[in-house]
Amino acid sequence: MTQPGAGTTPGMDRHEFRRELAQQLRVDSVRCSAQAGSGHPTSSMSAAELMAVLLDGHLRMNIDNPKDPKGDHLVFSKGHASPLYYSCLKAAGAIDDGELLSYRRLGSRLEGHPTPRVPWVDVATGSLGQGLPIAVGLALCAKRLDRLPSRAWAICGDSELTEGSIWEAFDHASFEKLDNLIAIVDVNRLGQTGETMHGWDLDVYAERARAFGWEAIEIDGHDVEAIDDAFGRATRESGRPTVVLARTVKGKGAEEVEDKPGKHGKPLEDPERAIEQLGGERDLQVRIAAPDTAGERHRFEPPGGEPPSFDLGDEVPTRKAYGQALKALGDTRGDVVALDGEVSNSTYSELFRDAHPDRYFEMYIAEQQMIAAAVGMQRRGWKPFASTFAAFLTRAYDFIRMAAVSRANLRLCGSHAGVSIGEDGPSQMGLEDLAAFRAVHSSTVLYPCDANQTVGLVELMADRDGISYVRTHRGATPVIYDPNERFEIGGSRTLRDGDDVTLVGAGVTLHEALAAAERLEEDGVHPRVIDLYSVKPIDVDALGRAGSETGAVVIAEDHWIDGGLGDAVLTALADAGVSAQVRKLGVRDMPGSGKPDELMREAGIDAEAIATAARELVGAASLA
Amino acid sequence: MTQPGAGTTPGMDRHEFRRELAQQLRVDSVRCSAQAGSGHPTSSMSAAELMAVLLDGHLRMNIDNPKDPKGDHLVFSKGHASPLYYSCLKAAGAIDDGELLSYRRLGSRLEGHPTPRVPWVDVATGSLGQGLPIAVGLALCAKRLDRLPSRAWAICGDSELTEGSIWEAFDHASFEKLDNLIAIVDVNRLGQTGETMHGWDLDVYAERARAFGWEAIEIDGHDVEAIDDAFGRATRESGRPTVVLARTVKGKGAEEVEDKPGKHGKPLEDPERAIEQLGGERDLQVRIAAPDTAGERHRFEPPGGEPPSFDLGDEVPTRKAYGQALKALGDTRGDVVALDGEVSNSTYSELFRDAHPDRYFEMYIAEQQMIAAAVGMQRRGWKPFASTFAAFLTRAYDFIRMAAVSRANLRLCGSHAGVSIGEDGPSQMGLEDLAAFRAVHSSTVLYPCDANQTVGLVELMADRDGISYVRTHRGATPVIYDPNERFEIGGSRTLRDGDDVTLVGAGVTLHEALAAAERLEEDGVHPRVIDLYSVKPIDVDALGRAGSETGAVVIAEDHWIDGGLGDAVLTALADAGVSAQVRKLGVRDMPGSGKPDELMREAGIDAEAIATAARELVGAASLA
Repeated sequence: MTQPGAGTTPGMDRHEFRRELAQQLRVDSVRCSAQAGSGHPTSSMSAAELMAVLLDGHLRMNIDNPKDPKGDHLVFSKGHASPLYYSCLKAAGAIDDGELLSYRRLGSRLEGHPTPRVPWVDVATGSLGQGLPIAVGLALCAKRLDRLPSRAWAICGDSELTEGSIWEAFDHASFEKLDNLIAIVDVNRLGQTGETMHGWDLDVYAERARAFGWEAIEIDGHDVEAIDDAFGRATRESGRPTVVLARTVKGKGAEEVEDKPGKHGKPLEDPERAIEQLGGERDLQVRIAAPDTAGERHRFEPPGGEPPSFDLGDEVPTRKAYGQALKALGDTRGDVVALDGEVSNSTYSELFRDAHPDRYFEMYIAEQQMIAAAVGMQRRGWKPFASTFAAFLTRAYDFIRMAAVSRANLRLCGSHAGVSIGEDGPSQMGLEDLAAFRAVHSSTVLYPCDANQTVGLVELMADRDGISYVRTHRGATPVIYDPNERFEIGGSRTLRDGDDVTLVGAGVTLHEALAAAERLEEDGVHPRVIDLYSVKPIDVDALGRAGSETGAVVIAEDHWIDGGLGDAVLTALADAGVSAQVRKLGVRDMPGSGKPDELMREAGIDAEAIATAARELVGAASLA
Repeated sequence: MTQPGAGTTPGMDRHEFRRELAQQLRVDSVRCSAQAGSGHPTSSMSAAELMAVLLDGHLRMNIDNPKDPKGDHLVFSKGHASPLYYSCLKAAGAIDDGELLSYRRLGSRLEGHPTPRVPWVDVATGSLGQGLPIAVGLALCAKRLDRLPSRAWAICGDSELTEGSIWEAFDHASFEKLDNLIAIVDVNRLGQTGETMHGWDLDVYAERARAFGWEAIEIDGHDVEAIDDAFGRATRESGRPTVVLARTVKGKGAEEVEDKPGKHGKPLEDPERAIEQLGGERDLQVRIAAPDTAGERHRFEPPGGEPPSFDLGDEVPTRKAYGQALKALGDTRGDVVALDGEVSNSTYSELFRDAHPDRYFEMYIAEQQMIAAAVGMQRRGWKPFASTFAAFLTRAYDFIRMAAVSRANLRLCGSHAGVSIGEDGPSQMGLEDLAAFRAVHSSTVLYPCDANQTVGLVELMADRDGISYVRTHRGATPVIYDPNERFEIGGSRTLRDGDDVTLVGAGVTLHEALAAAERLEEDGVHPRVIDLYSVKPIDVDALGRAGSETGAVVIAEDHWIDGGLGDAVLTALADAGVSAQVRKLGVRDMPGSGKPDELMREAGIDAEAIATAARELVGAASLA
């Protein structure tokens, strides 16, 4: 089971080497936390033998090329044990002792919780319960997309098993038969504030894991022979994922902290004494086993095809255009994959599923696992598009936030935005998505109003870095753009020129703004109409010019009044240094059920409301 | 087991009555969906017998007083089965047939998914996986706070068992020994787009439930005798919650849809034929069993005490002041309760826990369950305060969004906001919370800068309706307000008067703004400084006056640049009709680790950056 080529030291048998290596990892964890004056040494010390044995022969990784798709993944789901992780990197020769001691200092890539600024880190962790679901994505991707024997090892804390996302991961991993996934749970019994719910009752966790279709192995997490045996069993092909439940002692080896409450997340008071009790500093090096070089990464041969196009005046829902555009992307690119949260007939990702079933992942109603899987897949070089109702992406907001810390390139689609969905009512209406996504680092927020524009923007998302988000509507909107029109991210379209007032809309409200403009013209008011399809980045120039030339701006959005399109426009005007009278129209009261046009009228975001606001602004301006 | 006093009809035995009642519920579900032209009749038809038996003798509810704390709760976790729920209300005499047929029409309280606009609805559902965790909160509250034999019944779909939040609920319910909680799972095998992960394999669900410490009973969900028996067993005191796993057929009883894929979420094409196959319309009435009138609601006798106060100039973290204020609220009010996500020594809710252990709920690392429990508790009239790191409240964003649809009154605290936490790095930094909470309906967003202000605002939260949120910082800030100062929600404080430029800050940046003001005065620039502790609602008057009198506004926030304080101020200025040059300072680049002051400097939100921006604006203004 243990791979050849792993490191040993003359005069030491392998078990002895691993015990010594574990002590070194503890000492280095204590040292770097002491130097930083903060960190989680005790959560690191409990898992030292687990990591020593993993590094010495079980983990297969090309340390000089951590992006090698044949290598294994090591995901520290318990990201606060970063001292242990960085100590492992030092033992493996990836970083030196000087860098280890830069831990948590400004400018150091060894942050308080691991991020991919360190190239051996696949994904950022530190929000508990995320590493294992992402490891599911990595293992799923290796098995079904790359078709390589890469494994994903997730080091979990026992405290994080209370996160529901962990059980989404357990559910999906067994359903997908991921025997290339191994979860190692460091059951050190003590959480941040006290004992965990289940303490050292490993049987409780084992029963749950087995009921969720996993192999479960219970061991003493400080017994290197037992660990070696468990990892060997875990890596046999069984058709099932394996969890190794390791009973450990928090702060193991240092009297000051060993198995003591109140010692979470702080450096030791007397690190020197602890280092002495741990047998002093060591300088052992471990040679990580190389990945199997056999086999080639699978590539999908795209069948070829043309992007969809729609005739001017046709009525097409943007969500349907999304599905068609996504399917067409899959026709021409083999690297595009799709995921959906069991609503693919609503988001229309079913069009991709039906055309490219090998590249489609049904994630069922588990939005957190869906985003986590996408994060794993993009790490292995694929281009995942994940979709569900905009409202239900809020379920995964912490995962999306963390994906940004992971520097992930994700493409997300939220359908059924706004009150204009109609009868289903507020639980199904995405009304906070623009605000939520604007406040994600690295995000791009797109909001098309017609089918051809949707196609153009979805194509641009495929090669966009960061988290890109497209918002689609349930109902049909008329096609107003020619299929040959090209859109750029950060742009806008001025659809009607006028100097009395600017009407800004996007998606369904763009059409309301156009209708309002007709009514205003009848009154002799000449409005400018801007289609703000790119909410972030935003077209500061066009908005600044409009604000300055018309002096009055009405923004209408099918979204809560705060944080969305209106706020984005206000910021753009401020950035342009332009002063204008601005009226934001958005949803202010909790909607109920009703027909789309009834609800838009009630919310005050329809053509009539836009025209009224514009008349008031223009009247106020002419009085001023 | 079956309660006396339940409804029967002459000439029908009880089982026959229930079978007939079930058919009526199906017919009415078909009728109201047909009338609406939308809805989920097939998801309703599968659970008709389950509901018929529940209503007839097992559920105990004062239909004329649904808020009676002795009554049971009926939570439709599968909220899309609203036709069934409303048909139940009709059968119980709560609504009439005319109202039933108003389903999904504008103005009708019978929305597409149930909300508490209907008084028998405890909480809004429709985002799957939320009803059961909220039922955990209701059951926990009945048992530990009210100490009444009220039960919570949650009707779940099988599709929603893939949501991790369901397993958080399973975990907590058994840990808390909630034998007053019964989950009924309508295993109809078919999700929205196809078969569920586990189809009709009830054993899989039963094994998982048992591993999570529940009683699990598997039955044929169309067999009224088996259902009656199961509910009887479920309501015996066992020290454990019970799940009834009912194998059912989606669309049962109507050939057009029965057990057919592609029939989710749409009305029947031929409702008349289905009604005929179901035996036609009926007008059965069921008398819901009355709650046990014995026992009195428990009240906690508060020990009395004084709110904390802090001396001017002392350095105190606002998170610590939060904990002290919360503990003091508990000293004077028996209705205040607290929950925390296993970080109570970081948020300082441990001060409440230690003083009022009977009113403190450790929710471990399960933020979704934490919010759900709080939603349940507020429904029963308590005043829950729930806390964790601001960053980790994003984990529960869907629950918070839905709490607003539930018209819930929640008090939330997010600690460790912003880059100013320092070394722990971005995974632990709340940088999107202001944007996220501003975009929650009914929200109040508070952001104190010192300890006395924190105390005053936390006191105001206790009686505030809607979702109120207070953001606290990790590090100490100087006390600048007298303990006797009174703050109002929607207000602000102008701490320094000047007419050259306005500096707006809150929390940690307020102190930076004050320091910037000192530097600007040295340059002969006279800044106004506003403490914007109430981000929503916002002080439009004070900001409008400041904007108009100074013509230049700099806003600094320890938050992503989009969606937070800056956007709120821009909206206030627009609402005031005031034009001013505005410069937003916020976090634009992904932070790493470092000392708080280093990270604030790097983010460009410290005194120096504020002073520089102010100088630039004033310079630009004097050039203009």
